[in-house]
Amino acid sequence: MTFRDKLLDTSSRNHSLLCIGLDPQPGRMPVQDVAEFCRAIIEATSDLVCVYKPQIAFFEALGLDGWRALKATIEAVPDGIPVLLDAKRGDIASTAEAYATACFDVLGADAVTVNAYLGSDAVEPFLRRPERSAFVLCRTSNASAPEVQDLATPDETGGSEPVYMRVATLANTWNSAHGNVGLVVGATYPAELAQVRERCPELPILLPGIGAQGGDLEGSVAVGLDADGGGLMLSASRAVLYASSGADYAEAARAAALDLRDAINAARTEGSTAQDG
Amino acid sequence: MTFRDKLLDTSSRNHSLLCIGLDPQPGRMPVQDVAEFCRAIIEATSDLVCVYKPQIAFFEALGLDGWRALKATIEAVPDGIPVLLDAKRGDIASTAEAYATACFDVLGADAVTVNAYLGSDAVEPFLRRPERSAFVLCRTSNASAPEVQDLATPDETGGSEPVYMRVATLANTWNSAHGNVGLVVGATYPAELAQVRERCPELPILLPGIGAQGGDLEGSVAVGLDADGGGLMLSASRAVLYASSGADYAEAARAAALDLRDAINAARTEGSTAQDG
Repeated sequence: MTFRDKLLDTSSRNHSLLCIGLDPQPGRMPVQDVAEFCRAIIEATSDLVCVYKPQIAFFEALGLDGWRALKATIEAVPDGIPVLLDAKRGDIASTAEAYATACFDVLGADAVTVNAYLGSDAVEPFLRRPERSAFVLCRTSNASAPEVQDLATPDETGGSEPVYMRVATLANTWNSAHGNVGLVVGATYPAELAQVRERCPELPILLPGIGAQGGDLEGSVAVGLDADGGGLMLSASRAVLYASSGADYAEAARAAALDLRDAINAARTEGSTAQDG
Repeated sequence: MTFRDKLLDTSSRNHSLLCIGLDPQPGRMPVQDVAEFCRAIIEATSDLVCVYKPQIAFFEALGLDGWRALKATIEAVPDGIPVLLDAKRGDIASTAEAYATACFDVLGADAVTVNAYLGSDAVEPFLRRPERSAFVLCRTSNASAPEVQDLATPDETGGSEPVYMRVATLANTWNSAHGNVGLVVGATYPAELAQVRERCPELPILLPGIGAQGGDLEGSVAVGLDADGGGLMLSASRAVLYASSGADYAEAARAAALDLRDAINAARTEGSTAQDG
């Protein structure tokens, strides 16, 4: 099964566009063991998500133990649910191939986030296996994102467009071979998301920043869905993982995930009702 | 000692601007053990370099064993010689801090390469410790680099400049707090390097792509040195590591490194003679 197939299946089965980001920070965790913590979160929420997104940095910060915990975490995700590794890798040629080997073969992820500042050379090595996907950073949700991503550059009509729209166009090109490219667009700027969705009607979009980061859930769903009412993964990490700092953390995570899934679905229904009417 | 101090000291002691990139690829190595291979290269060349640059992707591709080998490789670098970890990390907030912990505390690197597509938020967490440095990807040497890096954007004079020059300007700003920012500029385009050096007279520049990638060594040295005749690290990996595929690989690496160091120094002398005359 390809990443896209797994995503569609899981999203449909769980009636969910919720992505849970696995960002284990030992200082905030009610248990010591990172793999145990992540496994408990996964077991408590696997019928509520469309994808899991482990953030590799938090595992790397723990050295060898973290690397082991990341592998165990990915293995703990039930078969059929896709794993999108948030690694934001960006290098070229044999180096990019080595990263693809690490993410896909060693760790077993179905997809990975990548940075396209180095252009096609940094993305294509991740796309050679049609069953895996690469999600290209397009417009991120952080305060300093405009410094590079919003720089104005001439467009094809004689006007101008921001750099991130050029990246969106490149992503369409990269998608043409195997249909395995996605985008990362922050949830704090629905206007940008609307532009990107218009440019890239067929690409799945990962939307970090709902939950703790305070992204605009309703606004994002209203403009970000694809023609089939999906194609969007709304990601929350801390709001789910650290919903409780006590022994009931897994139950609290489930409750937070359920609330988010249902809030997203309510926004989807609203959108389709508005369209129908 | 800061990264900058180590770099100046080692460069002066070894009379060298040569950076050796440690890119272990088991299929090309004459010995099985990655840590042993890297240690032998380091022992054979440590009086010829100004810095070592391990490429983390090649270690990650080997999983847990690779992570162990990377740590052992960094530990094998003699005290006082700086280690610049080529990781091209680029994320924000607590995630970027986790990467800084992994690179600096867990692995013990003195500096790391970073990607600034996400802006200041992705760079500043690496700069909070004045003794460590971050090298920002500016203009890379690969064929598809222009797709994003060369996009034209308005400059301050009403004209236009490529995106990478805007990144160079941002790097100057980031450098103002602790003087611990550097740049990565490819060796295949001396004209771009000249522009960047003019914009950033004080920043050390890592120049990958001499040796196997066929970068322009003389042209780069002619335009890339700082006012003190240094500030440039010319990096070769495969041309040194795989100079021989036999049991004499360490001796062959030393011979290749010596040739490169001396070729760089010849170009430096030529430059200063041309300036004097």
